[in-house]
Amino acid sequence: MQLFGRLHFDAWGFPGDSPGVNGFETGDPNVSPQDRLTIRRLRFGAEGDLPGNMLYRLDLELAGGNETEFRDVYLGWKELPVFQELLIGNQKRPYGLDHINSSRYNVFMERPSVIEAFNQDNRRLGIQSWGYTDDLGWNWRYGVFNQRIVQDEGGYVSDHWQPEVAGRLSNTLWWDEASDGRGYIHLAIAGSYANTDQNALTENFAGSGVSEARFRTRPEARTESRWYDTGVIPGADDYELLAFESVVNLGPWQLVGEQQTIWVDRIGAEPVRFHGAYAYLSYFLTGEHVPWDRETGQLDRAHPFENFFLVNTCNSGVASGMGAWQVAARWSYLDTADGDIQGGRGDAITAALNWYWTPYAKWQFNYIYGDITNNDLNAPLGAPNFGDYHILGTRFQVDF
Amino acid sequence: MQLFGRLHFDAWGFPGDSPGVNGFETGDPNVSPQDRLTIRRLRFGAEGDLPGNMLYRLDLELAGGNETEFRDVYLGWKELPVFQELLIGNQKRPYGLDHINSSRYNVFMERPSVIEAFNQDNRRLGIQSWGYTDDLGWNWRYGVFNQRIVQDEGGYVSDHWQPEVAGRLSNTLWWDEASDGRGYIHLAIAGSYANTDQNALTENFAGSGVSEARFRTRPEARTESRWYDTGVIPGADDYELLAFESVVNLGPWQLVGEQQTIWVDRIGAEPVRFHGAYAYLSYFLTGEHVPWDRETGQLDRAHPFENFFLVNTCNSGVASGMGAWQVAARWSYLDTADGDIQGGRGDAITAALNWYWTPYAKWQFNYIYGDITNNDLNAPLGAPNFGDYHILGTRFQVDF
Amino acid sequence: MQLFGRLHFDAWGFPGDSPGVNGFETGDPNVSPQDRLTIRRLRFGAEGDLPGNMLYRLDLELAGGNETEFRDVYLGWKELPVFQELLIGNQKRPYGLDHINSSRYNVFMERPSVIEAFNQDNRRLGIQSWGYTDDLGWNWRYGVFNQRIVQDEGGYVSDHWQPEVAGRLSNTLWWDEASDGRGYIHLAIAGSYANTDQNALTENFAGSGVSEARFRTRPEARTESRWYDTGVIPGADDYELLAFESVVNLGPWQLVGEQQTIWVDRIGAEPVRFHGAYAYLSYFLTGEHVPWDRETGQLDRAHPFENFFLVNTCNSGVASGMGAWQVAARWSYLDTADGDIQGGRGDAITAALNWYWTPYAKWQFNYIYGDITNNDLNAPLGAPNFGDYHILGTRFQVDF
Repeated sequence: MQLFGRLHFDAWGFPGDSPGVNGFETGDPNVSPQDRLTIRRLRFGAEGDLPGNMLYRLDLELAGGNETEFRDVYLGWKELPVFQELLIGNQKRPYGLDHINSSRYNVFMERPSVIEAFNQDNRRLGIQSWGYTDDLGWNWRYGVFNQRIVQDEGGYVSDHWQPEVAGRLSNTLWWDEASDGRGYIHLAIAGSYANTDQNALTENFAGSGVSEARFRTRPEARTESRWYDTGVIPGADDYELLAFESVVNLGPWQLVGEQQTIWVDRIGAEPVRFHGAYAYLSYFLTGEHVPWDRETGQLDRAHPFENFFLVNTCNSGVASGMGAWQVAARWSYLDTADGDIQGGRGDAITAALNWYWTPYAKWQFNYIYGDITNNDLNAPLGAPNFGDYHILGTRFQVDF
Repeated sequence: MQLFGRLHFDAWGFPGDSPGVNGFETGDPNVSPQDRLTIRRLRFGAEGDLPGNMLYRLDLELAGGNETEFRDVYLGWKELPVFQELLIGNQKRPYGLDHINSSRYNVFMERPSVIEAFNQDNRRLGIQSWGYTDDLGWNWRYGVFNQRIVQDEGGYVSDHWQPEVAGRLSNTLWWDEASDGRGYIHLAIAGSYANTDQNALTENFAGSGVSEARFRTRPEARTESRWYDTGVIPGADDYELLAFESVVNLGPWQLVGEQQTIWVDRIGAEPVRFHGAYAYLSYFLTGEHVPWDRETGQLDRAHPFENFFLVNTCNSGVASGMGAWQVAARWSYLDTADGDIQGGRGDAITAALNWYWTPYAKWQFNYIYGDITNNDLNAPLGAPNFGDYHILGTRFQVDF
Repeated sequence: MQLFGRLHFDAWGFPGDSPGVNGFETGDPNVSPQDRLTIRRLRFGAEGDLPGNMLYRLDLELAGGNETEFRDVYLGWKELPVFQELLIGNQKRPYGLDHINSSRYNVFMERPSVIEAFNQDNRRLGIQSWGYTDDLGWNWRYGVFNQRIVQDEGGYVSDHWQPEVAGRLSNTLWWDEASDGRGYIHLAIAGSYANTDQNALTENFAGSGVSEARFRTRPEARTESRWYDTGVIPGADDYELLAFESVVNLGPWQLVGEQQTIWVDRIGAEPVRFHGAYAYLSYFLTGEHVPWDRETGQLDRAHPFENFFLVNTCNSGVASGMGAWQVAARWSYLDTADGDIQGGRGDAITAALNWYWTPYAKWQFNYIYGDITNNDLNAPLGAPNFGDYHILGTRFQVDF
């Protein structure tokens, strides 16, 4: 059995916001978003192998204090014919590179709006197969999932199972063997067909079922409210998601982009379409690179050339190492406003500075500027349905 | 320190129910029980030895998401004179073989109605002694317990301590040494005297005390409501429980039966009597047997002759192992209707198929048919106090 | 990675209370405090080292059942220049020896009123430096903290950060090298300047901010209500705390005393001053001593000369060891009544008997007699604002 965990400590400040954004967050255009100090992640878990090529993994999220949650909770097999790795339980859905990437390795403190909005909290109960080719050129994952987030509730209760089939096909188009992967290109396509419960509120007793046709997210920072929110979309019967990913890495430079579209089919109403995209450029001032995992198609752990340290030396001096320094800029776009569903349309830019103390610890800084329009659903009565905002954030993190 | 855990994933469906049963579950005879997908158990714990012959154990139940609970939480001693093993803390009460058996080894997905109804959630704060004879012919456990379930609350607050003394005497009547225990007979008797708080609701402040004279259970499956439920029995001053167990094992065949009766004494009202029983027959199609633990008098871990596996071979073929296959049938009866307490009377049959992949992993299937009458206390106004139901369930599980 | 934990099981009884005390506890002068059985602590945690001289620690408190909390949760560095050890996260504030002492080593079951009232639950989010001199004569810790208790909530949300700077300077005035520390004298001074949010309730949305200018505690036992409670002090803008500690240890004898004062500055009202003190004398009947940790200035683990044990011997006799026996008496005083803030003034004496079975396990008994006056804020309407009480408690505990 291996034990593991992570600690993320965050501080967020909101130095400037317009009345509209105040309304999205606090319900009052005159009251601004409040600063926050928070344990963002407090994870502890265990994983291991079992006889018969089996494996298990459980990961607890304890940052909420009284509100404990779980994350990965699954059992499965390795090295099966056809399915290769097959996992049953609560696990990540196969779309959105930035969600597939571990929060330990994310370049920005919070994930892009579109990634979070179209795949809130990512993990679902399901069965998923994971595979890759022997030459590591291709990898894929696909499965069937229930759409309810259960990490806070433990289960799902409804005669409408709200199932979803989803998959991702990923290709490492180029891999620089000579530098052991300091250069690579990744392309992937992912999609989902999700059947939602049109009558969840009226037909299930005690509100046990809730339609999962709802897309919402925070402004790439931690806030009380989700500033983008379509609400449960009336009449939604199913939706389809199509997603594209690309990564180009050249030594210390990395360019990443994703685009996703969702089409929601409705009974008794016109279909609606939501979409979003982001792109970011990151650069290691100290020359390291962001490694790539070709078996699963995701970012891997970055290793500073020299760990940060600061110690007294024998001769009364101080010796030090500088760690790794990375800068990055992200542009992000999300449109959850279409037809009668005006749940917000906006974009944001984020500037980031990451100081990697060691492969297991870093200090992150983010500055975000964004604006949102077409947000009728989240603006209080009489308040503007648009606004812009500035956000500052910092995070201390270790994992073990 | 040893770490351990278990993962149980369940799916339940309710393909057919009568209006009465709908009412017990949903409060509306027209709304049927809803299907469910759930993490049934997500356990993680630690145990170990300490100096001075001491030991400790803690086991967390994290399947509820926000609603964390604990299970075994105790300290104690081994190898004491007279007491042998003596444990202080939250631990299983000493009655009901099917509750004493670990959920890892239970032949059916959920325990029989009578076992759950008369010993809801099993564990209580108490002090208990465990012993066995050197020849392993006899074993026993007895102790004093508070009757409140504290695994969700952490403690009990009331001037009425609601104590209970309970014990179990268990005999391994026959043990086939030649086959190392593929044949055995077990008999046990258990009993309890429980003093309940007649005035819990009126005399304790802020409802801090609740009378524990209440017996209830679900229909041997997971549902929202408990379909059998006496409510808190008015005037209940104390109750006595008497329980009998028997197991006969002949190689792959096992026959298990238990019977329990509870007599509730009441102030200002006639006493009431509740009772129940079950019997099941199980058979390993692949020839294994269910082992028996003679030190504690309970089922032990079954080991397939051949683990389930499925791997690609060098010459492009597939090699496989079949695991162990077990079938079983259970009849179960519960009567919690007597006098003015009409909390349900019914029986159920369950057919089970278990596929043991390895000693640590299995896949279970259950089909249940049952009917309930005399259920005035749990039927909504104007709805029938009787009904029948069909339930289907399946579970994936590992433990480590 | 090291794993660790502790289990504390408590029973409390309230054999005699006056109507005033009944009112503080239950809100009704005719209803007395109720007895309780409880898991006082159920801790499980992990700590370890990371590359680059880093470390981490997380400790979970699971005794509450559904109400999980965390305790120590931090990352940091060892052996830094200037700062020595530097920790970021949820950690103990640097004042109050009896709070700095681990609950594993506390001589009494619960901490003195003043220590709890002026530093409720002790841990806060902050950054703290820990140091000591090479000769172990001096040690210190100081840092900056947010004042909100987050172990149940996970974070703090408000534009007013409610910061606090606090430090403690500790001296081991005498250390008997010859006996390896069976004799020692410790003196320390600690202080804090805490900026509180005068307008928390009116200016922060959704009550997200709460003024931390509130001091309250239970009667050195576990009760439902806090019998001393100033409430949130109207107009409080900041407060200062000054604290003194002393310990004199002579072999099995130990004398400990602390005194603390808090001055609360208020806008639009007179300042108020609260203060308290305690002293206790403990004695090991079996001759052991309470060790001292000179690096951090706190009590260390006591080791019985002979562990408690009780085993059958080969020749049918019983062999035993007696463990260590300690008696102690504490006098404690707390005054949270000043000016218009009449939150209680009282003192209490506690008699204690501790039976250490091993260094990792003990059984504690406490008897408390106390009285409280000037408690207008916690007395129900028309009930007396004063009263006295008797309390009995016992605890079984292990740590690992």
